[in-house]
Amino acid sequence: MADINSYVALELHKNISEDAISWLIAKIQADKMEHGCQLNISSRKLEDEKTLALVSASDFRKRVGAEIFGIKKKYNDGSMREFNMADQHNFIGYLDDDFITESEALYIIKSELDLLRATDDDGHIPGHENIRLYPGKSILRKLKSSNLLTNIACLHNPTKLDKLGMGWYKNKSLTLEQPTDEIHSYFGDSITMYFSFLGYYTKALIPLVVFALPFYLTSSYWGQVESYSGYAMLNLIWASVFLELWKRKSAELAYKFGTFQKREWEEPRGSYRGPLGINPITGKQEPSYPDWKRKLRICFITGPIITLCIMSAVSLMFYYFSWDAYFAAKYDKVGTIMSKLLRNIPSIVYSVLVLAANLFYRKLAEYLTDRENHRLESSYQNFLITKIVLFDFVNNFLCLFYIAFVYNDMKMLCRTLRNLFLIQIIISQTMESLVPYWTYRHRVGDTKENKENDEPESQAAIDLKRDIYSGTFDDYLEMWLQFGYVVMFSCVFPFASILALINNVIEIRSDAFKMCKVFRRPDSLPTRNIGAWQVAFEIISYLGVISNIALIFQSEGFQKWFYTQDSSADAVTLLIAFFLAEHSLLAVRYALSTLIPSVPEHINIAIARMKYRSLQALKRQRSASLPPSEMLRKKLHLLRAKAARSNETNESTSE
Amino acid sequence: MADINSYVALELHKNISEDAISWLIAKIQADKMEHGCQLNISSRKLEDEKTLALVSASDFRKRVGAEIFGIKKKYNDGSMREFNMADQHNFIGYLDDDFITESEALYIIKSELDLLRATDDDGHIPGHENIRLYPGKSILRKLKSSNLLTNIACLHNPTKLDKLGMGWYKNKSLTLEQPTDEIHSYFGDSITMYFSFLGYYTKALIPLVVFALPFYLTSSYWGQVESYSGYAMLNLIWASVFLELWKRKSAELAYKFGTFQKREWEEPRGSYRGPLGINPITGKQEPSYPDWKRKLRICFITGPIITLCIMSAVSLMFYYFSWDAYFAAKYDKVGTIMSKLLRNIPSIVYSVLVLAANLFYRKLAEYLTDRENHRLESSYQNFLITKIVLFDFVNNFLCLFYIAFVYNDMKMLCRTLRNLFLIQIIISQTMESLVPYWTYRHRVGDTKENKENDEPESQAAIDLKRDIYSGTFDDYLEMWLQFGYVVMFSCVFPFASILALINNVIEIRSDAFKMCKVFRRPDSLPTRNIGAWQVAFEIISYLGVISNIALIFQSEGFQKWFYTQDSSADAVTLLIAFFLAEHSLLAVRYALSTLIPSVPEHINIAIARMKYRSLQALKRQRSASLPPSEMLRKKLHLLRAKAARSNETNESTSE
Repeated sequence: MADINSYVALELHKNISEDAISWLIAKIQADKMEHGCQLNISSRKLEDEKTLALVSASDFRKRVGAEIFGIKKKYNDGSMREFNMADQHNFIGYLDDDFITESEALYIIKSELDLLRATDDDGHIPGHENIRLYPGKSILRKLKSSNLLTNIACLHNPTKLDKLGMGWYKNKSLTLEQPTDEIHSYFGDSITMYFSFLGYYTKALIPLVVFALPFYLTSSYWGQVESYSGYAMLNLIWASVFLELWKRKSAELAYKFGTFQKREWEEPRGSYRGPLGINPITGKQEPSYPDWKRKLRICFITGPIITLCIMSAVSLMFYYFSWDAYFAAKYDKVGTIMSKLLRNIPSIVYSVLVLAANLFYRKLAEYLTDRENHRLESSYQNFLITKIVLFDFVNNFLCLFYIAFVYNDMKMLCRTLRNLFLIQIIISQTMESLVPYWTYRHRVGDTKENKENDEPESQAAIDLKRDIYSGTFDDYLEMWLQFGYVVMFSCVFPFASILALINNVIEIRSDAFKMCKVFRRPDSLPTRNIGAWQVAFEIISYLGVISNIALIFQSEGFQKWFYTQDSSADAVTLLIAFFLAEHSLLAVRYALSTLIPSVPEHINIAIARMKYRSLQALKRQRSASLPPSEMLRKKLHLLRAKAARSNETNESTSE
Repeated sequence: MADINSYVALELHKNISEDAISWLIAKIQADKMEHGCQLNISSRKLEDEKTLALVSASDFRKRVGAEIFGIKKKYNDGSMREFNMADQHNFIGYLDDDFITESEALYIIKSELDLLRATDDDGHIPGHENIRLYPGKSILRKLKSSNLLTNIACLHNPTKLDKLGMGWYKNKSLTLEQPTDEIHSYFGDSITMYFSFLGYYTKALIPLVVFALPFYLTSSYWGQVESYSGYAMLNLIWASVFLELWKRKSAELAYKFGTFQKREWEEPRGSYRGPLGINPITGKQEPSYPDWKRKLRICFITGPIITLCIMSAVSLMFYYFSWDAYFAAKYDKVGTIMSKLLRNIPSIVYSVLVLAANLFYRKLAEYLTDRENHRLESSYQNFLITKIVLFDFVNNFLCLFYIAFVYNDMKMLCRTLRNLFLIQIIISQTMESLVPYWTYRHRVGDTKENKENDEPESQAAIDLKRDIYSGTFDDYLEMWLQFGYVVMFSCVFPFASILALINNVIEIRSDAFKMCKVFRRPDSLPTRNIGAWQVAFEIISYLGVISNIALIFQSEGFQKWFYTQDSSADAVTLLIAFFLAEHSLLAVRYALSTLIPSVPEHINIAIARMKYRSLQALKRQRSASLPPSEMLRKKLHLLRAKAARSNETNESTSE
C-alpha cells in the first residue's frame, strides 16, 4: 500500500527565478546531513504563472521526524513515550500506515521547512543577487519577507475530511459526542482541545438546566432576584466544580496528546527579536532581550495605554447612560413612531462605537503584545488574552454591574442581559461561519464542482483560496463571555443557562463546519491546556460569588425577609451577614478547587513510574561505568598526597 | 591526617546476649554486597552492664554513601549535582577532609543502619529464640521494639560545637548574623532552615519598627485604632512582602542544600503500615494503604473529633467570658484585697484549662495524624501542622476577635493582647531553654566536669543523658503566634512589633543555646522549605487584611470622620466602602504574591541549564545507539509484510 501523504503547498511568486526554484527544491530534497530537509517535493507552473510546490514525506521520513521532534506515542506498557526508531516495535500500532497521524506529519514537515537555514555557501538567493542570505537565517522566512513566497498552506485531505464530518458537523442527532480521536489525528492538539472544552462545557450545562427548570416554573415573574437565590448558589458551586473537573479532563487529554509534561526546553517564537546573545541555558546563539526591558515596557508603555483605553470605554459607557437618560426624558412620553425610532439612537450609536472600539483595540493589543517581544508563544498568548479579556470585561459586563448596583433596576438588568445575550449569539453565528462560507463559495466558484479532489494540485487550488483560521482565540472569548452571563447574573437571568445550552449545541456544529469547510487547514500546535483561559474562567467564577451575593443582599425582598427574621437587626448586622455569606462562599469555592485534584491519580502514577524507571536506569548505567572502588580510593589518596606536596612547595617558595 | 569521625551511639540493654551483640556487630561491619552496612563499629561494656556501640564511617565510605543517597554537592561549573565517585575531581573541595559534612555523614550512617534488614538466613536474633526475624524486616527497629536497643543517638562533636557556639549563641554583640554554613554542616537542613527563617523574620522586623516609631511617638493614647490605621496598612504590605521574599530566600537556601528540586521518588516513612502490596510506581513490595481509606478516616474520624475539640475550646472561652462578667459584677466594686484576688479566679482557671487542653490536644493530634497513616513524612507533618494551627488559632486569637467585634472594647483588647504576648514570651523562654538546661545539668552532674571529651565514649555518656529535641515544630508555632499578634491587630497594638524584635534577638541566642548545649544532637532531615508553615503564615497575612480593615471601619473615630466627609452617607455607603477597601487590599496582597517571583531567576536558569544538558546528552547517547536508517527501514518493511501474511492466514483459516 502506498504511503498516505500529507501535503504542504508552497505558492511562489511569478517573479521568482527558475534558478531560485531549483535551488529551493534541491535544498528541500537534500539529506539532513547536508543541511537539507530530506523531504519529497514536486512543482508545476500554474495558469497565472505562479509556481506551486507540494512538499510531502515518506512514511519512514515521518517516523524519523517524530523521533527528532520528540513526539510521544503510546508504549506497549500503556505509558506515553517519545517515539524512538530503534525501539519502534514496542510502540502500539507501529505497523499502521497512519501511525504518524496527518496532523503530526504536517507538523513535522512545517517544522523542517521552518528550520531550513542558509549555509555558508549561500550568499544570496540564486537569480536574485539583491536578496542576501546570512548563514543561519531561515530561508523560507527570507523568501516570504522578499515576497517571493506568496503562500504556504497545509492541504486538506477531502476523503478523511468527509469521513470526519459525517460523525461531526453532519451528525443530525442531538448528541454532544464528538469524534475526538479523529479530530485529533486530523487537526492536532489545539483544535481538539478547544472542541473538547466546548463539548465538556455544553454537557456540563445539562444538569444546570435540569436543576434550573423547577425555578423557572415556580417563579412568578422575571427580575425577582430573591426567588432565584437558591439557584444562584447552586450555579456558583456548579461553575467551580465544572472548572475543576475540566482541569482533570484537560490533563487526561494532554496525557493522550503526549504534551502533559511541560517540555524542558522550548525554542523562541519566530518573531522574537533582539541583538544576538548567548542563551544562558543552551549556551547557543539566539536573539536576546532582557527581562527588565520587557517589564519596563509593560509598566510604562503597555500599562498606561491599556488603562487609557479601558478608561475611555468606561467614560463612553457613562456618556451612553446620560444620552440615554436625556433621550428617555425627551421621547418616552411622546407616542409617535418617529419618537420611538429616535429613542433608540443612543443604544444604536453606542453599539456601533463599541464594535468599532473592539476592532481597533484588538489590533492595538496585538501590536502592543508583539512589541513586548515575548520569547515563548505561550507567554505571548497569555499577555494578549489578559489585555483582551480586561477590555471585553468592561465593554460587556461593566454596564450590567452599573445597572445592577447604581441604577438598582433589576427589570432593566434582566432586559439588557437578554438583549446582549441574544445579539451576541446571532452576531457570532453569522460572522463566524456563514459570512466566511459565503465569501469562500464566491471565491472558489466552479473549481469545487470539478471534483478531481484526489489530486493534491486541485486541492491546493481550492485551499489557497480559503481564508486563514485565526486560531482558537475568538472561539474561547465567545465562550468566556457566555460563561460570564451564565454565572455572574444567574439570580437575575437564570434563563442564560438554557439559551447557552441551545446555542452551544448549534455552536459545536457550526464551529466544526467552519473548521472543515470554510477555512484553510490550520497549523497544529502542541497544547497542554487552555492556558490563560482557565484563569479567565476562574476569575468569572469568583466574581460570580461576589456579584450574586451582592445582588441578593441588595434586593428588596431579601432585606424585607432579613429584617423580619431579626427585628433588632440594623445596617451593621446586614453588613456582617453579607461579609460572612460572601467569605464563606469564597471559602467553599476555594475548598472545591483544592479538594478536587486537578490531575487524575492514574496519570500522576504513570508519570512517576516512568521517572522512577529512568532514574533507576541512570543509576544502573552509572554504577556500571564506575571503576572498582579500590581504584577510586587509591586515586583519592594519590590526589590528596599531591595536593599536600604542592602546598608544601608553595609554602617553602613563599618563605 | 586521620579521618574526622562522626559517631552514632547504640546503647544496648544489659539483657542482650553476647551472641546477639557479635551478630549485630558483624552485620554492621559486613560488606554492602553481603547485605551489611560496611561501617566501622567498636563496642564496650558500661558500668551499668549496658553495652555501648559506636558506629562510624571512613572518609571513603562516606563518599560512597553520598553517592548512594544522591547527596548534592557543588560542581565545578557552579551547579549542584548528585555526588558521583567516578567524577569526584569535578566537585568543588573534593580533597577536603570535611567534604562530606558531619550532618551528611550522620545522615548516611543513620540511613544505612535503618536500611539494615534481616536476610533469609536470620530466623531470629541469636540468643533470643523468641524474637523472630522475617526476611526484609528492619533489624534495628526489631531490636528497639523488643527493648534490646535502648537508645540510638548521634554524638555531638565538642570541638566543632565550641567553635560554632562562638559565632552564634555566645556572640555578645547585638548582631542578627548567624554562621549559616557552619550550622548547616553541623546540624543539617531542617535546623538551618529554621534558624534562617528566624533570622530573616527578625531582620524584617527592623524596618517595621523604624516605621512604627513616629506613630508611637505621635499617638496620644493606646487603643486609639484610627491613629494607627496608616501603620496598619503598611504593616499588611510589610507582611506580604516579607513572606514573598522569604520564599525566594528559602529557595536560595534549598538550592545551596541541594534539596531544591523535589526528589522524584521518596521512601515511605518508617511507621507507614498496611498489608504488603506492590507499589504502582516502583513495582516493589511495600505496605499499601488505599487513599480512599485515608480520606474516609479524615472525613469521618479525624474531622469530627477535631471539630468537637475546637467547639469545646470555643465554648470554654464563652464560659470564661460569662464567669469573668459574673466575677466582675460581684467583686469589681468591692475594694478589699481578698476581692481583688478572687476577681482573678476566672482568668487563672481559664489559663490553666487552656494549658491542659493544649497538652492533651497535642497528643490527640499526633495520635490522629499517625492513625491517618500518611505515606510521606512531609504529608504527615502538613496534616499535623493543620490540626495544631486550627486549635491554637481558636485558643490564642478567637477571644481577641470576640473582644474586638462583639465587646467592641479596644482598651480591653489592647490590654489582653499585651498580657498574652508577654506571658507567651516569658513562658517560652523559660520552658524551652532554661528548664531543659537545668534538668540536663542536674542529670549530667559530674560527668561533664571530667572534660575527657575528645573520647567519643565519654561524649556518648553525656549525650545519652540529654533530652531529645522534638523537632522544629514548637519553634515555628511560637513564631507563628507571634506573627499573628504583630499582623492581625497591628492597628490596636502596634507595639507588638517592637516586643517581637526584642524577643527574637534573644530567641536566636536561646534557641541556638538549647540546640548546642541542652538537647541531644538532632537528626538531620532533607528540607526544601518551611512546608505547611509558609501557608499558615500566609493565612495570617490574609486574615490581617480583613481584621485590620474591620477594626478601623468599626472604630468610632473613623465612622465620625467618614460621615463628616459625606453627609449623605448611610450604612449602605459604609458597607460599599468597607467592601471596596477590603477587596482592594486583598487584591494588593494577591498582586504582591504574584509579582514577586518566588524563585530567583538565576536558580531557574541553573536548573533549566542542567536539565537541557542532560536532555542533550540523552539524545546524543540515543542517536549513537541507533542502527543505520537503511536497516530500520528494511526491518519495518519486513515486519509489515509478515503482519500482512499472518492476516491473510487468519482470514483464510477463519473462512
